[in-house]
Amino acid sequence: MSIDFSPEALTDDLVAAGHIIPVGVQGIFGRGPVFEDVLRRFDDYVSRIAADDHATRMSFPPCLDRKVLERSEYLDSFPQLAGTIFSFSGTEAQHKELVENVHEGRPWTHLQTMTAVCLTPAACYPVYPSFSGTLPEEGKLVDMQNWVFRNEPSPEPTRMQSFRVREFVRVGTPDMVVPWRDLWLQRGLTILQSLGLPARAEVASDPFFGRGGRMLAANQREQQLKFEVVVPVISEQKPTAVCSFNYHQDHFGQLFDIHTANGDVAHTACLGFGLERIVMALFKTHGMDPATWPQATRDILWS
Amino acid sequence: MSIDFSPEALTDDLVAAGHIIPVGVQGIFGRGPVFEDVLRRFDDYVSRIAADDHATRMSFPPCLDRKVLERSEYLDSFPQLAGTIFSFSGTEAQHKELVENVHEGRPWTHLQTMTAVCLTPAACYPVYPSFSGTLPEEGKLVDMQNWVFRNEPSPEPTRMQSFRVREFVRVGTPDMVVPWRDLWLQRGLTILQSLGLPARAEVASDPFFGRGGRMLAANQREQQLKFEVVVPVISEQKPTAVCSFNYHQDHFGQLFDIHTANGDVAHTACLGFGLERIVMALFKTHGMDPATWPQATRDILWS
Repeated sequence: MSIDFSPEALTDDLVAAGHIIPVGVQGIFGRGPVFEDVLRRFDDYVSRIAADDHATRMSFPPCLDRKVLERSEYLDSFPQLAGTIFSFSGTEAQHKELVENVHEGRPWTHLQTMTAVCLTPAACYPVYPSFSGTLPEEGKLVDMQNWVFRNEPSPEPTRMQSFRVREFVRVGTPDMVVPWRDLWLQRGLTILQSLGLPARAEVASDPFFGRGGRMLAANQREQQLKFEVVVPVISEQKPTAVCSFNYHQDHFGQLFDIHTANGDVAHTACLGFGLERIVMALFKTHGMDPATWPQATRDILWS
Repeated sequence: MSIDFSPEALTDDLVAAGHIIPVGVQGIFGRGPVFEDVLRRFDDYVSRIAADDHATRMSFPPCLDRKVLERSEYLDSFPQLAGTIFSFSGTEAQHKELVENVHEGRPWTHLQTMTAVCLTPAACYPVYPSFSGTLPEEGKLVDMQNWVFRNEPSPEPTRMQSFRVREFVRVGTPDMVVPWRDLWLQRGLTILQSLGLPARAEVASDPFFGRGGRMLAANQREQQLKFEVVVPVISEQKPTAVCSFNYHQDHFGQLFDIHTANGDVAHTACLGFGLERIVMALFKTHGMDPATWPQATRDILWS
């Protein structure tokens, strides 16, 4: 049976099944009950696989201290994707103007001022400030599930402006961090393949801004700092990244003053499961009704 | 045993127990593993109580179509609490200016432009557009858990800028909506009291903006359009609202063109459990270690 791989086909099927609920803007949609159930079951499966690692579990809100965004150099690399939060801080007269502009469809940008918070640009960002200082001998390992924002409206259902990532972050010496990243790259593949997804790993790069960004991306590939696990979801030729594995070397260690027990600047790596993308990959591969999924997949998720 | 009710005491205890992880800004913090476990268990308890209602479950991201915010009249009433999302849409030269300003601590507001999305201002807002049109005979009932944003930085741990609400929304005739609200007000009290929380219900009002807002609030109280269930958490004199029950009459029905089967403008009501606040109320009332909580509370949450 040949599958129609296109963004439109997946959107139509997900909407018809009640798995996603379109709203008026691209990259934002409601999730239906079966979608949420599968997402929670996949997330719990990851928890079972990771249990013996005894990572410290944390959860952060979708909003981040703006100082962390500024300090992180995210705006150097991805200014077009970052979201900052503005609000109204004016007088009653300005409020009158605001309301009139809103109801008459005129611009009201000038009646908004920047707040001290922004959207979380990547699931690992909230945790780095908590590592500042000297690490314990064995480094640290954190496990999170956070909402992430990207300013990239798109008709592709897999390219969301707001989505959840199950994220693990390791901080310590390069000897701790790199083998851990490699272990999880294998685990990520095994997890997805065990669910019947045709997953494979590949070297990847980030969407750095501007002309200079092309060099940064080439450098990232050459040093194999980023891997992705990909699965065909809206295209067979260009499969969708559903997990991402990043080795930051001492980037965050420098920026957030993180040192290992022996005084060196700490290295970090992180990996994230794109939860909505994985749920969509499962629906695309096995069909819109989980009751008809392969028994091996069901045995794992409904265990 | 007398309990020290103050914002500082609760913050100190929650931080010392690892239940919340401060970041650099008020109203935003990480949640530790036990905090998250209790939150999920309480949420599941609500699911068990609500199961026979057969509500349609949905989940929406923390971001909302800005047109919904504009249409909803939220900015008329609470402009100071709403969060809009801005991003960078400039040239490479402007990016250079952005990065220089960020790293030299100069303002960079002028290099941000408003996007088509904003923060979800209340957990029920994403669902109203999906009701537009004519409702089925029996109306509709939706069950969600959404992240909500409020621009109100505060040292009170219970007053967050970003938090989760378990929300139910009923739409239909007044005869459907009002008794449903009353039923849940009783259920909300029963749920919280069953967990050993000294909860009570009271008539309440919203923090409307400006001088005109005082009249709106008085009117809301007089018509008993808003009830809250409150529990002492950071003050005995001013207990904290942990559930909110709102009857909107035909407000959203008018704004979003929602009609009942007989052609009348639909009425709506909603109720929300402030999940973080309830978890904090449990910690404050029963202590920071759930292993020592009363057996009756444990029997319910760990059932």
